[in-house]
Formats: sequence, structure tokens, C-alpha cells
Amino acid sequence: MSHDEKDPPAYRDLRIDGRRLSRRLQELGEVGGLDGGGCARLALTEADGQGRDLVVAWMRELGMEVRIDTVGNVTATLPGREDLAPVMMGSHIDTVQTGGIFDGNLGVLAGLEVIETVRGSDHTPLRPLSVAFFSDEEGARFAPDMLGSLVYVGAMLSEEALDTVSIDGARYGDELEAIGYMGSAPCPGEVPHAYVELHIEQGPVLEGKETSIGVVTGVQGISWQQLTISGQSAHAGTTPMSMRHDPGYVAAEIAVFVRKLALRFGSPQVATVGTIDLHPNLVNVVASSAVMTVDLRNTDEEVLSKAESELEHFCHQISEQEGVSISTVSLARFEPVEFDPRVVDAVEAHAKGQGLSTCRMPSGAGHDAQMLARVTRSGMVFVPSVGGISHNVTEFTKDEDTTNGANVLLQVVLDLAEEN
Amino acid sequence: MSHDEKDPPAYRDLRIDGRRLSRRLQELGEVGGLDGGGCARLALTEADGQGRDLVVAWMRELGMEVRIDTVGNVTATLPGREDLAPVMMGSHIDTVQTGGIFDGNLGVLAGLEVIETVRGSDHTPLRPLSVAFFSDEEGARFAPDMLGSLVYVGAMLSEEALDTVSIDGARYGDELEAIGYMGSAPCPGEVPHAYVELHIEQGPVLEGKETSIGVVTGVQGISWQQLTISGQSAHAGTTPMSMRHDPGYVAAEIAVFVRKLALRFGSPQVATVGTIDLHPNLVNVVASSAVMTVDLRNTDEEVLSKAESELEHFCHQISEQEGVSISTVSLARFEPVEFDPRVVDAVEAHAKGQGLSTCRMPSGAGHDAQMLARVTRSGMVFVPSVGGISHNVTEFTKDEDTTNGANVLLQVVLDLAEEN
Repeated sequence: MSHDEKDPPAYRDLRIDGRRLSRRLQELGEVGGLDGGGCARLALTEADGQGRDLVVAWMRELGMEVRIDTVGNVTATLPGREDLAPVMMGSHIDTVQTGGIFDGNLGVLAGLEVIETVRGSDHTPLRPLSVAFFSDEEGARFAPDMLGSLVYVGAMLSEEALDTVSIDGARYGDELEAIGYMGSAPCPGEVPHAYVELHIEQGPVLEGKETSIGVVTGVQGISWQQLTISGQSAHAGTTPMSMRHDPGYVAAEIAVFVRKLALRFGSPQVATVGTIDLHPNLVNVVASSAVMTVDLRNTDEEVLSKAESELEHFCHQISEQEGVSISTVSLARFEPVEFDPRVVDAVEAHAKGQGLSTCRMPSGAGHDAQMLARVTRSGMVFVPSVGGISHNVTEFTKDEDTTNGANVLLQVVLDLAEEN
Repeated sequence: MSHDEKDPPAYRDLRIDGRRLSRRLQELGEVGGLDGGGCARLALTEADGQGRDLVVAWMRELGMEVRIDTVGNVTATLPGREDLAPVMMGSHIDTVQTGGIFDGNLGVLAGLEVIETVRGSDHTPLRPLSVAFFSDEEGARFAPDMLGSLVYVGAMLSEEALDTVSIDGARYGDELEAIGYMGSAPCPGEVPHAYVELHIEQGPVLEGKETSIGVVTGVQGISWQQLTISGQSAHAGTTPMSMRHDPGYVAAEIAVFVRKLALRFGSPQVATVGTIDLHPNLVNVVASSAVMTVDLRNTDEEVLSKAESELEHFCHQISEQEGVSISTVSLARFEPVEFDPRVVDAVEAHAKGQGLSTCRMPSGAGHDAQMLARVTRSGMVFVPSVGGISHNVTEFTKDEDTTNGANVLLQVVLDLAEEN
């Protein structure tokens, strides 16, 4: 790759305009903006439509050719010296109900900033550069999440996506048409030469290590399970401990078990019990049932499967012991994704070349890049999230960090765009 | 006491009419009756008023003098040979929202059955006999529970009770007036010579031991605490285990701790976590807060206090370890009550004398008898609950058991009524 050459290419000194990037982030953040900060642009709502209109207008101002596909994914392309498969940047612009202005948006707007920087230079890359934003990445309105990129890479049928029904009862296809983003470009879409996504970390690791750039090696595999524990409702005062079949107690034992499992397995294993619902949930009644979720993640499929089977074994054991029954439903299961080693190396080398501190890390959250990794060489660049906070109106990343991340993206993309 | 005498008194052979008792239980159960069984007569609702009217009509049919006090407690008296303080029987007739037809009602209607049996005999007790039903025992609409008997014994001011506001926003005094039960008899009320209450066990012990009569030695002390655990909301995928401050995990550790504490202390210590509420309660978000309750009960005040202090110590330890804060509010705290040993002995002796199997036990639930125990010699008789189920429409006690319990009540009361 070009960063290994003796004579660095002339474009090596190009740098994006951090203030321009910041202005676009703020302007897009005002669409669906919430009083006191953050924004709400759930997928395919009117606010999402307005956000799309703004970004598409910017794409056209930059002279890009905009294509909208059958599930609403938008791809804009700047021609290269030759008509080859483009190097694609991108992410998403939909948000959760009370989201921040960086999650997703940064990857799309940094892509536009790369385009504007290149257009303003005398360098024309060999390959076209494209910037995409994929529909419904958050999955907060239409499940599953990463729906647009899932269809883009052919892992879900376009027709199936259009018939998906939202939490508010609306059909994806109808809502897409209502905001004017039912396009005609085919989906699955064109396979790019490579895909690189800049994203905020959404976690506390980079800030904790005072590191500027996260070199993302892959995406953790995810296992979401819902456990329903059925026991025997009983009076908290009159029922001796030995005669109880208490789902609340069993739920607690499981939550403690998964914490211990994560510590025993060590990083990068994480395990979370984020929901517990007892019924009838009264101070003086032993619960009749408990419904809880367990979120297990690991970068190693074998270890993740081991975590699942140890949990299953423990559930069997504790249910026998307490005399309750436990039924398990899988809510989501994704195998771990490894990003392309050359893209990963390039991100690291360019960050270091720009004098930035780096840290190799997996992504704990799902991203469109993991879908694109199914069809092309892919990678990601992370920048720090203040306090590790995301999916929250207080989500924040410093201008310095968004600028650094976009500059790494720029150089990685320009190198990839010179590949034959 | 008379059961120790050589020549048993003539009334020793009196027995109540089990079918008549059963019919009254069914008839009262139909007031506020629910489709499919059980009934709903929350305190001071229209249904409670109708239930009161029915019981008061029965009292008058039995020639009793009915008095209603300033918080709606109803006391009916049958004169004795002398105008002494009466021996009182009783309980409550209010129910929880989806309650059974035995809880409380049995104690009141068995009292009427005792009256009817005595009236139909040629025996007139030395002391008057009275039957009371106390307002708002359940506390399901107006907190605290046992409110009527609390005021009756002078532990709460009548004025304070009248100003209590219900879960539905209504004032106790207004609701009492609306159903026509704002009486003029003074409250605190007349102190009876003794108080005996027949009640269903509401637990599984008697059924489990195939025992007919529970000889109730006292009422467990109760400690209800609400713990609010505050941590740091975080992404379940991107936040390493070592950087978490997870209130959900801490709540689980506390629930497991209290179970282990109960097992370590041994019977009669019980400990229950009946409520856990996580916020935001999402599968992929480490909770920011957890609110949970801990219900601790023991018959020994010293041991109960030790349980509380061990819980406090554990909360301190686990909150330090996880980096969360825990605040505790006491929702209720009652010291254990010991019933009068002579009344307890009499219950046991008469049950055995009637050829019934017995078992000494504390009450795990609160009852009006524990309030009366503050001012007079008191005791209780328990009969088995099928499946240990109560506060539920499927609550059930066999006719044979209600009859046995009422016959023990009859003989204990007749003995007490001969005391000078």
C-alpha cells in the first residue's frame, strides 16, 4: 500500500476542514433536534426524511451522482480517473428516539468532507469515491437493526424489508414512500472496492486510555436471549424458604452468574442483564414469574458459544434446585465479524503517521460496516466518546477528535482508491 | 382455665353448624364477586359498603347490639350474664383487588356462627360476646394496612386516619361517609377482656404437615425496605466489565444475599425480593438505576435487627465494590408480637380435645389480632389454605377445616367468657 512507498504521494498532505465538518454535524443535528440537545430522527419518520433531504442536497452541491435504492439506501458517487468499483465511505443518519448528533451522522458527513477536500485539491483518485447512508441502522423503529445494509449486501430480500412493520404499526414500504425515498436503484447494490466507516466509539475505552484513534479489528458476536422463569406466587411472610419456587431469586442468581462468567472468561467477553420484569412485582409477594434478558458478546465465535452453553447449563441447574421452569428465546444472534487486515493495518499506520495515539479494539456495537464486510474489504475508525455515552442526548465527541478521525479516513480511502 | 377442671362445663359439647358458616361465606363472597371466583371489596368502596350492610344485617338478626365507630370499625355485642368487658372475636371483610372469600371474612363469620350457636343453646356466658370487623385491614386501598384496628387500640389518631388518601386519590373520611359507615362510637374503642381471631393460614405449612389447626404463637416482625441503586447507564456492547457501575447487577447480588441470609439464619427467618425495577430496562443498556424491595421477617426482634444490619453491611460493601450508590427507605417496620400464652395454650388444648392435629406456628402475615394484642390478651387460630394460596381468587379452605377452626374458636371463647 502506498504508505509503505519511499516517495509518499502528493495527496498525503491533504487534510479535511474540521470546522466545516463540525458545522455540518450541527446543522444535521438540528433536524429533529430536541430542546436541550440531541435529536430524534427515527427511521423513515418525517424528521428522517428532512435529514435525508439535507444530506442529499449537500451531496448534489458536491457534484456527486445520487442514487436511491429500493429500500431507501442513498449512495452518492464522485467519479475517479477510471470507471472502476468505488471506494465507499458511509454510515447512517437515523437515530434512536433520544439520540445524539454524532452516532452514524459522523461517518456520513466525514465522507462528504473527504469528498469536498479531494474536490478542492488537484488530486483525482484512480477509483470513484462514494458516500452512502443506509436506512434504519438503529432498528429502533423497524427491527432488525442494520436493515438497510443487510438488504444492500443481499442478506435480506428487499420485499421482506418493505413489509416490515414498525413498533408504531406502520409498514416500512409505506413510510419509505411517504418520505419520498422509495428509489429505483437495485438492491442488493453495487459491491464497492472497499468500505471504510468512521464512527464514534460509543464506549469509554478510548477516553479511558487517552487515545485518539480506535483501530477497529472487527465486531463482537452478539447473543441476545430472553429467559422466562415460571415459579409459584406465594405470600412473602407465610411461605417458608424451603417451600419457595421463586423466579425473582432465580433471575438474580442468573444475573450474578453472567457477571462472574464475563470476569472468568476475561476481556473481550461482556455480559449484561439489562432487563428484569417480575410479576406481580409486589413487596410482599414471591413472584410467580420473571422475564429477563441476557446480552452476551465476544469477538471469538467459539468462546461466545461456550458462554451460551455455560449459561444454559447454569439455568438448568438452578431451575432444578429451585423448582422453577425456564424457557429461552433467542432475540438476536450475530457471529463475530473480522475486518480486512489490510484495511485495519492501513487505519493504524495512517493514524500513527499523523502523530495520533492508537489502540486496536473490537467494536462492541453493531455497525453497517459489518454487513459490508460480507461482500468487500471493510474496516472502521473509532474516535472517543466523552464519558463513553451514546444513544443519549448528551452524546459528545470533541471537534479535535472528529477532525482526527476524518483525516485518517481521508488518507485510508485515498490509498485504497489508488489500488488497481 | 375451665378445660383443666375435672367436671367439664355443659357447654363443652356445643358445636357450630359448618353448613351455615359455609353458606354465609359464600353469600358474602358474592358481594363484589368476580367472574370465575374470588371477590373484590377494596376498603370503603361501594362493594365494601354492600358487604358491611350484609354482615350488619346478620348481626341484627342475631339480636346483637351494633356499634359503628368514627373510623368505621363495626362491633356487635351479645349480652352476658353480667355487664363485664366482652370477649371479642373478629377480623376484617375488606379484600385485595382480586382476593378470596376466606381471608378475614372467616374470622368475622365464624364469630357470628359462635353467637348463633350460643344463642341456640341454653348456655348464657358470664361475659358478653362481641364480633368486630375492622376497617381497611388489607391496606390495598389506604395505607397502612390494619388501619382500623390500629386506631381502635389508640396507636393512630382517628383524625389522621380520616385524612388518609387512597391510591385512587380519595379521602378516607369522605369514602367512609359515602358508604354510610362514619359512626359515632368512640375510637379508640372499648378494651375487650380478650380477643380471639380465626383466620386462614395463607401459607402452605399446615397443608404440608397435614395438620388441621395452627396454634398461632405470635406474629412475625416485619421489615420492608426499598433500596434505590444508582449507577451509570452504559452500552452493553462497548463498555468493558471493569468500567461498569451496574445497578442491575448489584440488585441481583442483594437478592441472592438475602436468600442466603434467610437460609443461614434458618426458620422462622424469611426474606423476599418481590420487586425489581431497572431503568431504562433495555436489553443492550447497562441500567442507570434499580429500585428493589426487601421484605425481612422474624419472630425474634433481635434476630430481625441483625438481619437488617447484615443487609446494610452487605449493601455498603457491594456498592463500594461496584461504584454505585444505594439509598434505603423503610416502607414498614413492625416489631414481632407474642400472643398471650394462656390463650395460645387454650387454643392448643381445645383443638387436641376435639381430636384435631395441631402445630404451633408464628403468623407470617399481619392481622388485626396483633393490634388488639397491644391492649388485651389475644390469640389466633389458623386453618389450612389449599396450596398455601391467598390474596388470589383461587384462595380456598375446605368446609371441614373452617368448621374445625370455628369449633376451636367457640370453645376458647366460651372458656374466656367464664373468667371473672
